[in-house]
Amino acid sequence: MVVQPILLRGQWQKAQTLQTFRAADPARGELLPELFPVSSWSDCETALVAANEAFQGLQQMPSARIAEFLERYAAEIEADRKELVRLAHAETALPAATRLARVELPRTTGQLRAAAECAREGSWRLPTIDTAAGLRSGFQPLGPVCVFGPNNFPFAFGSISGGDFAAALAAGNPVIAKANGCHPATTQRLAEAADRACRTTGMPPGTVQLLYRTRHVDGQRLVADPRLGATAYTGSRAAGLRLKAAADAAGRPIYLELSSINPVILLPGALRERPESIADEFSTSCLLGTGQFCTNPGMVLLLDSPQSATFIDLVCQRFRAAPVEPLLSKAVRTSLQANVQALQRAGARVLVGGVPAGGAGFRFANTLCRVEGQTFLDESPALQTETFGNASLLVVASDLEQLLSILQRLEGNLTGSVYSDTAGADDAEYEQIAPILRQRVGRLLNDKMPTGVAVSPAMNHGGPYPATGHPGFTAVGVPAAMRRFAMLACYDNVRQHRLPDWLQDPNPTGQTWRCIDGHWTRDDIIPPETD
Amino acid sequence: MVVQPILLRGQWQKAQTLQTFRAADPARGELLPELFPVSSWSDCETALVAANEAFQGLQQMPSARIAEFLERYAAEIEADRKELVRLAHAETALPAATRLARVELPRTTGQLRAAAECAREGSWRLPTIDTAAGLRSGFQPLGPVCVFGPNNFPFAFGSISGGDFAAALAAGNPVIAKANGCHPATTQRLAEAADRACRTTGMPPGTVQLLYRTRHVDGQRLVADPRLGATAYTGSRAAGLRLKAAADAAGRPIYLELSSINPVILLPGALRERPESIADEFSTSCLLGTGQFCTNPGMVLLLDSPQSATFIDLVCQRFRAAPVEPLLSKAVRTSLQANVQALQRAGARVLVGGVPAGGAGFRFANTLCRVEGQTFLDESPALQTETFGNASLLVVASDLEQLLSILQRLEGNLTGSVYSDTAGADDAEYEQIAPILRQRVGRLLNDKMPTGVAVSPAMNHGGPYPATGHPGFTAVGVPAAMRRFAMLACYDNVRQHRLPDWLQDPNPTGQTWRCIDGHWTRDDIIPPETD
Repeated sequence: MVVQPILLRGQWQKAQTLQTFRAADPARGELLPELFPVSSWSDCETALVAANEAFQGLQQMPSARIAEFLERYAAEIEADRKELVRLAHAETALPAATRLARVELPRTTGQLRAAAECAREGSWRLPTIDTAAGLRSGFQPLGPVCVFGPNNFPFAFGSISGGDFAAALAAGNPVIAKANGCHPATTQRLAEAADRACRTTGMPPGTVQLLYRTRHVDGQRLVADPRLGATAYTGSRAAGLRLKAAADAAGRPIYLELSSINPVILLPGALRERPESIADEFSTSCLLGTGQFCTNPGMVLLLDSPQSATFIDLVCQRFRAAPVEPLLSKAVRTSLQANVQALQRAGARVLVGGVPAGGAGFRFANTLCRVEGQTFLDESPALQTETFGNASLLVVASDLEQLLSILQRLEGNLTGSVYSDTAGADDAEYEQIAPILRQRVGRLLNDKMPTGVAVSPAMNHGGPYPATGHPGFTAVGVPAAMRRFAMLACYDNVRQHRLPDWLQDPNPTGQTWRCIDGHWTRDDIIPPETD
Repeated sequence: MVVQPILLRGQWQKAQTLQTFRAADPARGELLPELFPVSSWSDCETALVAANEAFQGLQQMPSARIAEFLERYAAEIEADRKELVRLAHAETALPAATRLARVELPRTTGQLRAAAECAREGSWRLPTIDTAAGLRSGFQPLGPVCVFGPNNFPFAFGSISGGDFAAALAAGNPVIAKANGCHPATTQRLAEAADRACRTTGMPPGTVQLLYRTRHVDGQRLVADPRLGATAYTGSRAAGLRLKAAADAAGRPIYLELSSINPVILLPGALRERPESIADEFSTSCLLGTGQFCTNPGMVLLLDSPQSATFIDLVCQRFRAAPVEPLLSKAVRTSLQANVQALQRAGARVLVGGVPAGGAGFRFANTLCRVEGQTFLDESPALQTETFGNASLLVVASDLEQLLSILQRLEGNLTGSVYSDTAGADDAEYEQIAPILRQRVGRLLNDKMPTGVAVSPAMNHGGPYPATGHPGFTAVGVPAAMRRFAMLACYDNVRQHRLPDWLQDPNPTGQTWRCIDGHWTRDDIIPPETD
């Protein structure tokens, strides 16, 4: 049986490996036919050498060339959209039309084009110039970036197509993509499109490389290698923390997006004002994509009240009535069941679901659990277990004081939402809640579920540990996401013609925002006349 | 004998400790009389609780209030300058007038005032607003910051007065200062000034706290505590990496400034053009402050040539003729001797010095070592040992190719300098050298020694590991240095009156630069008219 090739140094080639694996069709629960390799260290070594050669080449290129590559790649993805959607649907069971074709694929090409625009425009570097001191600085690429993609977004967070990929490339770094084992064929197809785009636009071989899997020990060696600029990882907390330990010990930057339960606080006035619509919003958000979003609302915090009781009834009805969609893999279902059981052991009661669902494939019943506030306080680490999938925990606090205590126990999260009465009836409670929640989440929402992550320069898809590895960085939204893959480079008394174009006196694009002597401007620097 | 008090929760109080220590007068080599405490964990715990209470208070304050504190503190330092200089000179033996009074103290008050100005003006937050998406984000304070100061700048990098302190405070965070054991009385005196400024300007108790020393195990526990926002450390590599390991394992941000040898490359044309002046510049830079600068030129890279031989003779003369000043401590002298011996074991020859100097106090002869390029390539880790103090290693490469290979072996450094012929005779060599050096240093200099670190928004006092812990951050230069102590906070659909003032439609100061829909501006946002 043919083992699928990997992409190294611009060539599709046989992996150096003894092991293989297959992905599964989650809707049927059956293995797919293609065999993919688990690479040995030898493949990682080849990738590192080639990526560093490519980095030398990329550094000589104007950013506009890299922008052309990203745009060409977006066009290649669009040209191949039917087959990409077919493969991704087969490997993830995510809805082909409503999710993959109409939402995730356009988001992916949109991200690539937005990153291209940032690369071309140049403001992402935050060029900072002190003319009197002769100092000029800004961000420049760091070196090859290894991207570990998650299972839940085969395109938009994919290791060779997603936000981390686009940000790393746009900042001028080659990418070594480590595919997610759930959707290797999709990733392979994307890599073929990326490779075509590299050839068409003349990128150095090794700009984009693909491995499907490695042994854990080799992954840890890879992220710690001094030839690697940085790593971006999205996935489970346990695997992410192993990589973090390896990278940290070697002093290599690593950006992690780990688990998050994304607390949603529903205040009494809001529930009195619009119970049905909030129940709809919550149920839709929690079950969207079978709940497999980093920003899934996995915890709802309520005050004990008649409105809350009504709300809980409404969402129970909706969770029972909603169809049960497949999960991404057998492992996701196994973890979901184990995590729901962990909540139960810690004192939560199952209101709806809580067991694997019938039918073909990897399904778990839509699940709602409930726990009282005091129990949460007693068992707050265990009751913050993420139930990745179509499940959420309702936490009912006896009063505001208890609710505030619960908030103070929360770990770092990507998001935190507060629903309040539109006329202001909940404002006093909001004022006490917001400061506590604010420090614990990367994005604070009002009257909105967290699952929509707009691709915007003002987005923060990040948050305090353990939601991510560092609270100052976002994984979504250029230009900020690009600066993760960059170093601050200062030029002191460097002769004008030796400066990079973005720090020379003329504005290189006419469009680059630069902070010159404390003022943000797109103007050129006019050197003082010399006599 | 009285044990000096520590500053906790706005009160000077007795430390919980069983151990004490004394600082020494490095010029005489004798212990000073005051006894200082080594704190137990109990003091750290008190500091953490008080700092978090203070943080709640600071979050309610307008940034202008924090700016007033920083400015008041600068004025308090100036009012007490005579005694501060006397104490610092007694504890460090750094020149009282030419260094401490005329350079370092004004630098320190200048940093505090620059940080105050940034806090007041608000642009440090990089406010980013997407009006169409309803998303607004920027940097906000992270929580209490623990600052470990180094031995070599009692004021300007001092734990309770230096750049890290100013940046952390200006970003809105309380500081727990861990004094350097070399100059506890100076730090105490600064803490008294800070405490007066806190009282005068109404800062919450616990905004500024001081411990002198802790056990290593307690320091590691402190930087890993979830109640701490972040840590800033400047000092030896070994101690810094121990703290880093503890902080990393707990997911707490830590910013490190560790060792750096700051390579200086002298090209033949420059040495032909101006040998005497370069020899003067190098000798002055290397012996300034007895060579105890983070940016001391600890390695000079030359091509084997008559010009280089002449230059080496010139610097040997200068090193022999220059007075031998005291080092900061006995430990610094012990390390310097050990590190020079490590260079010798790795193949370096001593040209000048290499032994402890006579006279009172902790002195080591001004030292120049030399090694051939091939030996450096064979022993490149050992020959990059930092010789903190009045010593430098001359590396003589046989040709340009060997010089480039040497550059490729260099670890991350704070700075890298290249001297070249002003008429362009060295330009071909420069073009090959600069790209390799650029990736390995935070600041690239032309025709300038690295010891001057201007306080400027365009400065980068940082660099790739192991010079620091992360290549994207600078320890000198506001506003960038402030963002180390901040988290990215996004507001999604948050009601206008609930936004922090710096994200509301009107520009809160009229001076805050904000990136609104892709344009940097100081304008207000004019909401669209509603019908």
